[in-house]
Formats: sequence, C-alpha cells, structure tokens
Amino acid sequence: MRIELNEFAPLKNVKVTDEFWGKYTDIARNVIIPYQWQAINDLVPDTEPSHAIKNFKIAAGEEEGEFHGYVFQDSDVAKWLEAVSYSLTIEKNEELEKTADEVIDLIGRAQREDGYLDTYYLVGDKGNEFTNLLDCHEMYCAGHMAEAAAAYYEATGKRKLLDIVCRFLDLIESRVGKEEGKIHGYSGHPELELALVRVYKATGEEKYLKFCEYLIDERGTEPYYFDEELKQRGYKNHWGGEQKTADRFYNQSYKPFREQTEAVGHSVRAGYLYTGAAALAAETGDESLLKACETLWDNATTKQMYVTGGFGSTVYGEAFSFDYQLPNDISYTETCAAISFAFFAQKMLRTDVNSKYSDVLERILYNGSISGMALDGKHFFYTNPLETWEEANKRAPGYRHNKTKRPGWFGCACCPPNLARLITSLGNYIYSSDDKCVYMHLYIGSEAEVKLSDKKIKISQKTQMPWGGKSEITLSGGKYAFAFRIPAWAGSADVKINGESADYELKKGYAYIEREWCDGDVIEIELPMEVQMIEANPNVRYDAGKVALQRGPVVYCIESADNGERLSSIKLKDEPEFRAVREDLLFEGEVSIYAKAVKKKAWETEDLYRAFTAGYDEIEIKAIPYAFWANREDTREMEVWIRR
Amino acid sequence: MRIELNEFAPLKNVKVTDEFWGKYTDIARNVIIPYQWQAINDLVPDTEPSHAIKNFKIAAGEEEGEFHGYVFQDSDVAKWLEAVSYSLTIEKNEELEKTADEVIDLIGRAQREDGYLDTYYLVGDKGNEFTNLLDCHEMYCAGHMAEAAAAYYEATGKRKLLDIVCRFLDLIESRVGKEEGKIHGYSGHPELELALVRVYKATGEEKYLKFCEYLIDERGTEPYYFDEELKQRGYKNHWGGEQKTADRFYNQSYKPFREQTEAVGHSVRAGYLYTGAAALAAETGDESLLKACETLWDNATTKQMYVTGGFGSTVYGEAFSFDYQLPNDISYTETCAAISFAFFAQKMLRTDVNSKYSDVLERILYNGSISGMALDGKHFFYTNPLETWEEANKRAPGYRHNKTKRPGWFGCACCPPNLARLITSLGNYIYSSDDKCVYMHLYIGSEAEVKLSDKKIKISQKTQMPWGGKSEITLSGGKYAFAFRIPAWAGSADVKINGESADYELKKGYAYIEREWCDGDVIEIELPMEVQMIEANPNVRYDAGKVALQRGPVVYCIESADNGERLSSIKLKDEPEFRAVREDLLFEGEVSIYAKAVKKKAWETEDLYRAFTAGYDEIEIKAIPYAFWANREDTREMEVWIRR
Repeated sequence: MRIELNEFAPLKNVKVTDEFWGKYTDIARNVIIPYQWQAINDLVPDTEPSHAIKNFKIAAGEEEGEFHGYVFQDSDVAKWLEAVSYSLTIEKNEELEKTADEVIDLIGRAQREDGYLDTYYLVGDKGNEFTNLLDCHEMYCAGHMAEAAAAYYEATGKRKLLDIVCRFLDLIESRVGKEEGKIHGYSGHPELELALVRVYKATGEEKYLKFCEYLIDERGTEPYYFDEELKQRGYKNHWGGEQKTADRFYNQSYKPFREQTEAVGHSVRAGYLYTGAAALAAETGDESLLKACETLWDNATTKQMYVTGGFGSTVYGEAFSFDYQLPNDISYTETCAAISFAFFAQKMLRTDVNSKYSDVLERILYNGSISGMALDGKHFFYTNPLETWEEANKRAPGYRHNKTKRPGWFGCACCPPNLARLITSLGNYIYSSDDKCVYMHLYIGSEAEVKLSDKKIKISQKTQMPWGGKSEITLSGGKYAFAFRIPAWAGSADVKINGESADYELKKGYAYIEREWCDGDVIEIELPMEVQMIEANPNVRYDAGKVALQRGPVVYCIESADNGERLSSIKLKDEPEFRAVREDLLFEGEVSIYAKAVKKKAWETEDLYRAFTAGYDEIEIKAIPYAFWANREDTREMEVWIRR
Repeated sequence: MRIELNEFAPLKNVKVTDEFWGKYTDIARNVIIPYQWQAINDLVPDTEPSHAIKNFKIAAGEEEGEFHGYVFQDSDVAKWLEAVSYSLTIEKNEELEKTADEVIDLIGRAQREDGYLDTYYLVGDKGNEFTNLLDCHEMYCAGHMAEAAAAYYEATGKRKLLDIVCRFLDLIESRVGKEEGKIHGYSGHPELELALVRVYKATGEEKYLKFCEYLIDERGTEPYYFDEELKQRGYKNHWGGEQKTADRFYNQSYKPFREQTEAVGHSVRAGYLYTGAAALAAETGDESLLKACETLWDNATTKQMYVTGGFGSTVYGEAFSFDYQLPNDISYTETCAAISFAFFAQKMLRTDVNSKYSDVLERILYNGSISGMALDGKHFFYTNPLETWEEANKRAPGYRHNKTKRPGWFGCACCPPNLARLITSLGNYIYSSDDKCVYMHLYIGSEAEVKLSDKKIKISQKTQMPWGGKSEITLSGGKYAFAFRIPAWAGSADVKINGESADYELKKGYAYIEREWCDGDVIEIELPMEVQMIEANPNVRYDAGKVALQRGPVVYCIESADNGERLSSIKLKDEPEFRAVREDLLFEGEVSIYAKAVKKKAWETEDLYRAFTAGYDEIEIKAIPYAFWANREDTREMEVWIRR
C-alpha cells in the first residue's frame, strides 16, 4: 500500500491570528525570548548563571574561563535561536535579527577548524569527543543546533548557521556510522534524528536522511553499542561512577527500533526518538518504520498518556512505566515530554490524516504543555502532576519533584525554551495538504496559504475555540477537497457552507468536503461545547470512581484557591448541573465550570479512623482550566480527577 | 501528679492457651526458630549465606575468614537467642537449650579481653570501634545482645550471657557519656536504650538506667554529635561517600528528645527509641519524659498510622513522612516498625492504663505485624502495603519494595526474628497489675498469675477472639479490682459475673469492677462482632470515598484471588448486606466477609479515556483477614480500602 504523504504548510505561509494562542505567542515573543536571552547571558538576578553564551566565547578564544553548566548547555543557545527564528517569521525585528546574527557569528568563531562544535568538549572535556555518546548529549546538542540552523534559514534565508551546522554534521557522520573504522554508535539522548530530517529538507542533501536512518536502525542492535562504549571507557560513567551496562530501557535501545512495541524509558528521549523516526518515514514512506512508529504511538497514547496529554509516570528516570500505570500525584509528566509528543503527532499526521494524532496534539496543546508556564511567562513547571498537595510536595520524599508554585527558571532549562519554540511555530501544525486535498487539523484562528498540485489555496480561519464551539473558514476557489477534524470530544459537528447545511464524508475522524469552491466560500463549523465527564479505562487503577471535567479541548481541574483544602473530600453529585461561565478570571475569555457536589465535613475529633458515618456539606465547586492552575498565591492543592 | 505504674506479669507467669495465637506460637517455635538457626549457620539452600555465626567463630579465633554481612549481622544471633529464651519459657527443650548454651559459649569466646563484643569491629573494621555510631549499628547490636541476655536469664536463670553483656555495656559506658574525655555520642539506630532498662531489671544495677537516660537526653543536643563524628572521620560515611551532615530527622535527633513532638524518620528507629524512653519513664516515673512519649505516641498513632497498625509512609529512609500522608500502594509499613510500636504500646500501658495504647497494640498484633509472615512460617514480607498491584511492583519504580509474594528469607533479616520474639513473648502483653488492680489488656486465651501488693491472683481466660466476641475469665478470690479493656471497635460490652449482668466503671477505655471476688468467679464478656465499615479522617487524602472492613480487631482486605483483577473497579453498595462466614479457608476458625458490590465492566474498546457511562456488574465480594493475604498462588492484587 502506498503511503500518501501530505505536507504541512510552512510557518511563513501561516499567520496565527487566534485570540487564545495570540496571547501565548505574545508571551513567548515578548517575555520568554528576551528572558531566555538574559538567562543564557547570565543577566537574570538571583539565579545561577547559565554560562551558555560564555562557553561559546571561551571556545572562540575571546574570553578566559572554564566550561560551566550541563553537558547540554549549548542547546539552550540553540533553542533560543530556534524560537527567535520563528518569532522573526511571525514578524520582522531588525534588532533581534542582528542579535541572532551576532550569536551565529560567535558560534562560527567557536567552531573548531575540523567542524567540531560542542563547547562541553571544546572547552571542558577536551579531546574526548565521541567517547561518551551515552551520557554526554553530544548528538543532542548537535541536533538542537541543526534545528536552529534550519529554522533560521527558513526564517531569514541566511545560510551561515546552516553551513556551520552542516560542517559539524559532516564531521559527526565521518566519525559515526555503519562503515568499518567508524564508531557504531548513536545518540544517548535522541534529537539529532529529527533534526537531520529538517536539515535534509533545508538543504536537499540526502546524506542527512541516510545518516538519520543509520542512527535509528543501529539503535538497540547487537553487539550493543553503549556497553561497548562503557567498556572502552573502563566502565566509568560521566559522573565518575562505575557502570557495567547501560539502561537499555531508559534510552529506548532495548530492541532494534523497528521491533519496539512499548513506549519505555525517559519520556522526552522517547518522544524525540519517535519524532525522528516518524519524520524519516514521512519523507521516505518507509512502511515498516511507519508501522513501528504507529505501534509506539498507540501504546503511548492509548495506554500511557495522562488525560492532560502528559507523558511519564515516574520520577525515576523521568520515565514511562507500563500500560495503565498512571498515578496522578507522583506523576512526572514533564513539560518537554508533552511537547515532544506534539512533534511526534505532527509527523504522524503527514503519513496518515487520522484524528487519533490530531486529537492528542490538541490535548497536549491546550493542557499538558502550556500548563508548564505561568501566565506571566516567567515561571515554569518542569513537571505537571494531575493532583497535588503542597505539604506532600514539601515533606514526602517521592513527591518533591512536583510543586504548587512554578519556579523562576531552571538550572536545567529545557522546558521554557521548548515551550517558546512550540508556541512560536504553532502555525506549522494547523494545515497540511497533498495534491488534491487541504487538511485542517486544528481549530486555531489563522490566515494561511497551502499548496495543492496545481494551485495555492488561501484559508482564513476564525474560531471561538477553545471557549466557544463556532468556527468560520473562508476558502479561495477551485476544485479540491477540504478536510477538517471532528474532535473525538465533539463526536459530531454542525456544518454549513455559505449558510446552508452541508454534508461531509467522515474518514478517520476527518470530515471531507470535495467540490468546486468559489472564492470566499464560507464553512461554518459548530462543535458541541457541553461540559463532559471523562472517565479513564478501568485498567487505570488510580482514576477509579473519578471523572475529569472537559469542555471542548480544555481539561479542567479544581484548586484549593476556589474550593478549600482537602479536595479529595469533594464528590460530584449524580446530577452535577454543570454551569460553564465566562469569567475572564486569569485569561481573557476563560470559562469556569461550576458543579454541584458534596464535601465530607471535617471531623470534630482527632481520631484517625472511626466507623463510617455520613456527614457532607452541599457545595458548588468551581473548576478552572488545568493549564491555568497555580497562577494564584493560595494554591495548596489541585486535582484533575474528581470523585463521582 | 504521681504516675501510677503497673507491671506486666512476667512471661513465665502467663501461659498462652489461645487457639489463634497458639498456631502462631507453634509456627514461631517449630518453624521460624529452627529455620533461623539454619539461616544464621548458612544452611539454607539457595540463599545468600548469613555468616552470622561464622563471624563469631572468626572473632573467637576458631575459624579463618573475613567478616561478612551487614554491620548489624550480630543482631541476628541475638534475636535468635532472645526468641529461643521465650520458647524455653513456654516449654523446656533440653536440646535447644544446649544449642543456645553453645552459642553463648561461642559469644563468650569471641568477646575481647576488655569486654568489646561486635564482630563487625572484632573481625572486620578492626580498631575502629566507637568511631561511627551514626552508621555502624554498634549500640544496636549491643542492645539486641543485651535483650537476649536478659531474656535468657529470665528463662533459664543462667547468668553467663548476662555477664558477657554487662562487661560489654560497662565498656561502652566507659567510652561514651557526658563526662569529659568520653565520646558524647548516642545510637545511630536506637535499641540499646530499651535493652538497658531490661538489663537494669535483670540485674538491679541502676547504672544501666542512668546510661539509658544519658543516651536519650544527649540525643539531638548541641553541639550535634553526629556532625562532630562526621568531621572526625573526615566527612566520610560508612559506604565511602562524602557526607557533610547527618540526617537529623532520619534518626530522630532533630531536637532533644523531650522537645520532640512529631514522629519522624526511619520508623523502626523511631519505634525503638520511643520504646526505650517509655521503658525508662515506666521505671522512673519521669513525668516530662513520659509527656514527650505520649505526645509522640499520639502523633504517630492518630496522624501517621495505617489502619492495619502499619507505620512508615515512604520507602525513602523507610520512614514516617508527615501527618495524614498515608499512601496505600507505595507505603513502606515495615513489619519491624509495627512490632516496635507494639513494644512502645506495652511500655506506655505501664504508665497509664488507657485503651489508646492497648487498642493500637491489638491492631498491630492481629494485622500489620503478622501480615509479615506467610502461614507456612517460612516466607516473610519486609513491607506490608495496604494496596498492591503485582505488575506495578515489578515494573514501576517507587513500588518495587512492595511484593505480592513473600520471599523466603532476607539478606537483611530483621523482620522474621523480630516476629518470632514478639509472638513467643506474647504472654508478656496480656496482663499487668499494680497494688490493688489487675488489668487485662488483650483478649488472648491464657492462664496467668499476677501479683497485687498482698496477694497473687490466678486468672484463666478463654476467648473466641478474634473470630467470636465471647470471652470467659475465671478469677481467684480476694478483694481487688479487675479491669479489662473495652475495645474502641466494640464501643461497649455485655458483661456478666457468674451469669448475672454486672455493672462496671469505665475509665480510659477500661471497665473496672472492684469487689470481693470468690475463687472461681466467672466474668463473661461479650463484645459485638458486627462487620464495620471504617473510614479514615478526611485529612487522609488517599482514603477518601473508601472504607476498610473490620470485624472485631481484624482488618480485612480483598484479593484478586477471590474477586478478580482491577480491584479498584469494585465499589460497595450503599447497603452491602455483610455476611460474616466461618470458612477455615487459610486458618482454622477464619471468618470471611461477603458483601454486595458493583464492579465496573471492562471496556470493549482500547480507549484510554471516554465520556462517562455507567456499566457495572452486580457482584458479591469476598474479603479475607489482611494478615492472611498473599497466601495463595494467584494473588496479583490486594486492597484494604474499598470504594464505597
């Protein structure tokens, strides 16, 4: 069976005009990017210096000093450049572009003559490059720099960083590969794989696609590379400890990639690896690779995903555990893991227009990704639990990775710039097309131009989402099919064309309308926006007897700030009489949900256990969007899954 | 206020004739003690050798070799000797006594000329004694040996081990203490404190009481001893790591003992320390010490105790966490921690006849202590969770300390011998007396003689407990008060004397009847044995919306072996129509509980989340005593707290 590939409209052809996402884009462009610039230049007061720019200056011989930071410190500079690229695509900014050019010049000066470019090895552990792919994120940093290079080239047409990166990639490829004499290794932390596909698309050079394929297919083969590498290093790991063998699950090398069937290990590594494989398959149409990707997608999203679009059940290894093991209070659910699955979803959508991908993409976007950021754009969660109790986070070991207040910035600063690059490139997730059909995957207000085989189509989308169910799409003329997603949460849609009810053909969750369109034809889509009680598969022990509230794509939570403490004592009534009320509380347009519930009365005695007696107060609870939790001072408890 | 102290009838004056406990005593005497003997002599096949006896032989110069095992390996020999002592008290056994005498002779030969006696330092880390009280369990091992010595002396009248131990204690006391030139230290793992009180009682030597008082009062003072010790050792801990400061919470030295108000840290350390302090207070009547003990008791048992009488919410440090933080599936609840609180309860009962102590003692005995042992007496749980899911225990980090099958024996073999010594000394927990009153704390079939100021009273107790509510106490004559506990779970009792309804005065949970008793007077006590639904304080987030089933003192659980998997999908009906049925399933006399419930149907789709729909099967669940769980092959899930 031939795989029909479609292509997302490039960012420069899509202008996001959405009210909801416009605010996030503004935050990303006006707050996160400048803040991140300060951070990588060690200008944020009361915060440990990042040293990221300084490492490059030292590598370039322009400053004295030693390497500081994580082995992946370079990636902070790369992610900043990537986000800047998207920001420049959205809107020109000469000053910002000049700053970016200067950083790129610096990177160029830091690059070694042979093309090598990783300040950890240029300044820090000199001469030991390519000896510790397991721990030292060399390929990970190269990948981020490559993504930045491709993005900056797409944004500005300037090739300098792309050329720098290509020289580095060529060096890596000359040292690592299947051929005799090369290191038969691959990335300890995937990222380069997906970046190679981007560089291929930017340069047209097939060697980058081939190298990507090598990295994916070499992974998990025998003899097992990481154990060989440990042996070479005298069984010493990066932290000076003795280590006999690598954790094959942690870094997804427990089997050759095409044989893997379960999402395992470090969830960000997993998401990046799967994205790289899917990106490759989406270029090559490689069916067995695509099959593996789909199997892993299905496992991750139908067995191991939180209702918020979070991934990673355990703090140990920041990792997946196994099917249906989804504890809410000790979950890890790293912001970056959610983001990595948004990347994965987009790649899968290129190979199969199936709402199982875009529904999850939407779930991640409105919930488990942006929950990582405070609405001031300056405070960030690394982990996003679905239930939290401040005192436990402070005092119970095993809970301490979860917080009720977003800290300012991190030593390990992966999540904020990852959010920045996702949000500023959101235009790249909305529309795709193949020869004869335009696909609309997300309800996000935007103006776009997409390419069919013989023409370009202009699309204008206005939408009330996520707070209201109405969207209005205006199209330019021609004979083609227009397909839009009917979200699983909606089940159906009321569709009109130019004010008249219209039929559609439903395939894999998408409504297809094929006709001769006239310029200015308007499709009105109305999705039902009732408050829904969502239940989890009974195999998820942790959610038994509980429901999550969802309205449209937005998952809700209850906070102690609105509902008092002991949220676990709250139980929805059989008829909760939901009221969805626009309140503009924390965010313009924000809709709160009110529901009838009972709350167990506090005991008057100090007993710990007693014979059961009823004793409830009738209350009305107020739920707010999960993404907005912990934006008020008095947040001491939060829960998504409410007893029913 | 003068504290009125009562004294428990010594073991030799109480013969346990109880059906329920008789079985456990038989297991302890006929299975655990011989098995433990094999273990400490490295005779158990397929198990890592204990090396415990061998370490003594090497110390005695009778074998070649190196020290092997934990730093506290000696305590396994001591605990065996202690259990043997109780066993010999219960019933003479010349062969066993001969074996014990030989072990004691060996210990004597292993003792250094100056009295020093810890094979870890005699054979292993030579010359470094008293340099690492923090990590190396030196005082802990001395304490266990001292307990064994006192017990063996009480059982046999033989002083040899007691003399050996006293020489060692005198050496310790000459090196550690308040005086200048001495080490101002105390135990990293408490145990010596409670043992010193026992040695004082066996020898009458007040110096042991004084040393106990020093150890308790020095704890947590400034300058902080353990930090001084770390400094002395160049900030190296026992495992070779660098360590700047000791964890003051882990070992309960965060404040001077008398100022401590919260049970914290390693729960076995806590239980032993509190027991030692209570034992001291129960000898001296020291009010401020007693007050501290009561405060800690109240905190531990009314804020941090599981309904099974388990203690220790977290695997990190095998420790308490904080008030009401009682997760059921990741709890630690070490068998030894429950046992240590049984010790603590008994000491507190000497100072205050209050059912808040004896109710917890009973809860521990019937539930969270014996759950540590399989009914074959050969398999043991280290930890006793209240909810378990085999796959999570195998695959989810953070859950792996909990198991659904009891392993055979442990490298760190603290729990089995601890159970053996508790069970074989159970006679020492039932009756106490002061000048004018006999107290019956537990409903356990027994024949006893207790001492009042002017006479000895004979008591014969027959009881149906824990399966039935009727007990019959026959007393010998005289004018005195007889007081027996009305358990909190009963609320009241139907009491008859010689067949006639009798009144009693209720004080602190005990029914007092004072009169001129005639020889052979019979008190019949009937306690209600309805199945109770127990609820937890609403501050315990983890138990919200759930109940535990209890009948008499026995807490029940449901197992997948009876109720299928996905126990979380089970919900009791509003009217569960409980049926308590004697079934003799795993244990003679065992009563199962049946209840009407519903169980969420499995989904027919692979979805992870969907809009809520009802869909339940009407079922009858079967609950078994928690103590007996995991005694069948097909135990894959268990839960105590059931949704209601």
